[in-house]
Amino acid sequence: MSTTIEIICIGNELLIGKIKDTNAFFLAKKATLLGANVKRVTVVQDIIPEIANTIRESIARKPKFIITTGGLGPTFDDKTLQGLGKAIGQELEINPEALAMVKQKCVDYAKKRGFVADIEMTSPRVKMATLPKQTKLVNNPIGTAPGVRFDVQETVLFILPGVPVEMEAIFSETIAPLIKQAVGDKVFCERSLFVDNIFESHLAPLIDQVMSSNLGVYVKSHPIRTKNNPHMELHLTITASKDQNPEEKLLKAAKELTDLIKENDGLITKEF
Amino acid sequence: MSTTIEIICIGNELLIGKIKDTNAFFLAKKATLLGANVKRVTVVQDIIPEIANTIRESIARKPKFIITTGGLGPTFDDKTLQGLGKAIGQELEINPEALAMVKQKCVDYAKKRGFVADIEMTSPRVKMATLPKQTKLVNNPIGTAPGVRFDVQETVLFILPGVPVEMEAIFSETIAPLIKQAVGDKVFCERSLFVDNIFESHLAPLIDQVMSSNLGVYVKSHPIRTKNNPHMELHLTITASKDQNPEEKLLKAAKELTDLIKENDGLITKEF
Repeated sequence: MSTTIEIICIGNELLIGKIKDTNAFFLAKKATLLGANVKRVTVVQDIIPEIANTIRESIARKPKFIITTGGLGPTFDDKTLQGLGKAIGQELEINPEALAMVKQKCVDYAKKRGFVADIEMTSPRVKMATLPKQTKLVNNPIGTAPGVRFDVQETVLFILPGVPVEMEAIFSETIAPLIKQAVGDKVFCERSLFVDNIFESHLAPLIDQVMSSNLGVYVKSHPIRTKNNPHMELHLTITASKDQNPEEKLLKAAKELTDLIKENDGLITKEF
Repeated sequence: MSTTIEIICIGNELLIGKIKDTNAFFLAKKATLLGANVKRVTVVQDIIPEIANTIRESIARKPKFIITTGGLGPTFDDKTLQGLGKAIGQELEINPEALAMVKQKCVDYAKKRGFVADIEMTSPRVKMATLPKQTKLVNNPIGTAPGVRFDVQETVLFILPGVPVEMEAIFSETIAPLIKQAVGDKVFCERSLFVDNIFESHLAPLIDQVMSSNLGVYVKSHPIRTKNNPHMELHLTITASKDQNPEEKLLKAAKELTDLIKENDGLITKEF
């Protein structure tokens, strides 16, 4: 059984082409390297029913982890906690622990920046500490808005802020260890072969052959187009327990594929 | 009524952190600039039921357009047409027009690259011309695999290849004009204010005030963190008919917001 993960990114800015999403890429890469299986990324607007539906649909697919990013700040467009509340049927209430955390962050921040501004707990600040009932706080080592955890059936759901450094810090501190624990001793291994002088359609049966004699190894062909000089990257991956020698399996498959390609007049231009 | 769009990106490489998705960003930006409303991006694995479910769920939400990218090539991992067939309940069959198109592309390509290879229509090539019944061909001005169009209720679904230059060429040639037509005379306008010396939580009520007195204008705050010197970008957007003077509306809102920020000791460091 693989440790499945879904990622949900929340924010209009991602859907109007204002900001290139980097959070999903970071999370997908890190989770894969930890040995997990990232099933889906969904990007939705700052609209409460959309957020709620997306979270509800994701829970219904029963991944081991769901990680959302974005929409935890103090402004009106930060709607993730309301969306979460709607998704899990829990009213929002001020969480005293979260409130203390937000207040402390504001004091620290004001001191650091030399603001004379008061640190009154205005409603936008209280908003960041207003969580759906039965959710747990997750420490944000960098920013003001805490993360949130909610356990539902076999799924652990994490709600993270969208600011990349904050999201990354919470992931590393809190989520990565849990993924590692769920994954056990599985590891992810990869190799690349760069191929020229052969059609992708001629490669297809060779890839099929190597995959069927090397179970567990996945080979994906990526056409690389540089002006009129296209070539291919063949990317071999495997996620398996260490005692199954995944590195060796990958090497064996890469060797077989290389031999077949050469027999068919293909050139291997690079390998790593 | 806005012209709604959903984007579906298909490919394991996007979910293992191998390749940064650029297709969704390109499509979201272009569609927004054309005046459309991009509702959702979904990224899924090369697994037929996953692709089918994602397409089916998207159709059920009734966007005006659905655009998928990836999974149209000749190799086994290219499964989008099978996923589409499953989603819309249509068996796949060889489309003679698509077959002629694929064959011609192979001939042209072989000539250009000086390949002596024969251009036999092997099964991986025939695969690219094997489409669900009742779908229509879409010309691919650059690559081998044609795009596919399927009309279902009020939705037009386009299946595009994942290679960015091919996807972009088909979008520009075939899809952009249709979006423009659906959108009518609406335009998308945006302005940015960069703000310092004020908390995001202090900005929140000012943004609320400006949004409620400038209906149609959306203001989104983006914290920009550069080491210990965070500041904010306030991004103002509107999509409206030209006769509603969206540019003027945006300028008025930006002016009001600027005044409020200055009254609250905030600094505007940049504006465009």
